[in-house]
Amino acid sequence: MAQPKALFFDVFGSLVDWRTGIAREAERLLKPYAPSTDWIAFADAWRGEYQPGMEEVRSGRQTFAKLDILHRRNLERILPRFGLKNLPDRLLGELNLAWHKLDGWPDVAEALKRLRSRFLLAPCSNGNIALMADLARRNDWHWDAILGSEVAGDFKPKPRVYLAACEAFNLAPSECMMVAAHTRDLIAAAQCGLQTGHIARPDEFGPNTGEPVPTAPVDLAGKDLADLATKLRC
Amino acid sequence: MAQPKALFFDVFGSLVDWRTGIAREAERLLKPYAPSTDWIAFADAWRGEYQPGMEEVRSGRQTFAKLDILHRRNLERILPRFGLKNLPDRLLGELNLAWHKLDGWPDVAEALKRLRSRFLLAPCSNGNIALMADLARRNDWHWDAILGSEVAGDFKPKPRVYLAACEAFNLAPSECMMVAAHTRDLIAAAQCGLQTGHIARPDEFGPNTGEPVPTAPVDLAGKDLADLATKLRC
Repeated sequence: MAQPKALFFDVFGSLVDWRTGIAREAERLLKPYAPSTDWIAFADAWRGEYQPGMEEVRSGRQTFAKLDILHRRNLERILPRFGLKNLPDRLLGELNLAWHKLDGWPDVAEALKRLRSRFLLAPCSNGNIALMADLARRNDWHWDAILGSEVAGDFKPKPRVYLAACEAFNLAPSECMMVAAHTRDLIAAAQCGLQTGHIARPDEFGPNTGEPVPTAPVDLAGKDLADLATKLRC
Repeated sequence: MAQPKALFFDVFGSLVDWRTGIAREAERLLKPYAPSTDWIAFADAWRGEYQPGMEEVRSGRQTFAKLDILHRRNLERILPRFGLKNLPDRLLGELNLAWHKLDGWPDVAEALKRLRSRFLLAPCSNGNIALMADLARRNDWHWDAILGSEVAGDFKPKPRVYLAACEAFNLAPSECMMVAAHTRDLIAAAQCGLQTGHIARPDEFGPNTGEPVPTAPVDLAGKDLADLATKLRC
């Protein structure tokens, strides 16, 4: 395996802890309206609508809409389950930005700095450009470009998303590595010809819920992004 | 006029000196084949095909192709004028990357650092993503995202390019400022509702050839990007 020239990153779960971040923002904004809510359950419910929402686009039943739009639809879908209704539109708009205010796992910022010394770096996430730009600002990440769903006009694991990222950097898929904590994402990238790097994020959905190791063969696996950087000789 | 939230930048001529950079790379690679060439004239000839090449796309006569592709076509068009033929394909590929190896005007890197403390920053250039990413690496610029022609699927001054940049950041056009050394670019941006900032680049096509001041009303004008940054209170 030749060293890749570019690394593409899954973001939700792989680089950021969406679960506690969404719970924190939901509690901050909604507690006055529903004081006894389980905010982690709220985060899980919101995230639970994520795949079904994207599947409407992947299947062709809906035209592409960026993730901020889907997140808002999904939010409105779950609110009644928590007894929340007639909330001000402005509040929902602010809550929807919770996804822009997530914190990276502790190893990420430093590991990305090391990796940037040898590779082009871009998120290849289902998140949209504004969301990715805000996460980068918050966490002090330096991307070479923001690639992924909005540039491709579709959602992972559709092949177009991985291939559009490679094409944006004028690289062949074999010159690129997809990095993610989810084997499903890596299998789809490998089917497009990309190299694959797995990172363990065991606590994504709560303690010991994530994949400690990949569940299918990958090119490289690290116990976190710092470990993967070391294995990539950074 | 409210302060903008994002600044979008024209790049060729406004941030980088394409003329001496292209002449330098052409001389480096082609001198063995054509030792007595006027390399500045070569750069001007290559750049001379820029607008006609893009006009094929803007007019709808050709489907969108990223600027690297158009640069290569344009290169092959001008080579015979300089008595150059049957050059190795690999050499032409390397020469085409000359556009990825341009140097910023001396004030740019520091001014962008200052501007980034207050604004989202992105190129809104007719250059493609890989080209913009390489220029950013070379010149130590930190963009929040790479926007412009490849994200929009068309070339400036078509409205879609400016509007796609605003939409990518979830901003209204009035919350964004287009910054360029070319009044034509700013007029088109203003027609889309963006604020406009002019920077003088008097030496773009040789000494005292550029616009020392805008040739139509703009919201802000600086004698260079550092001056514009000061006027934006950075």
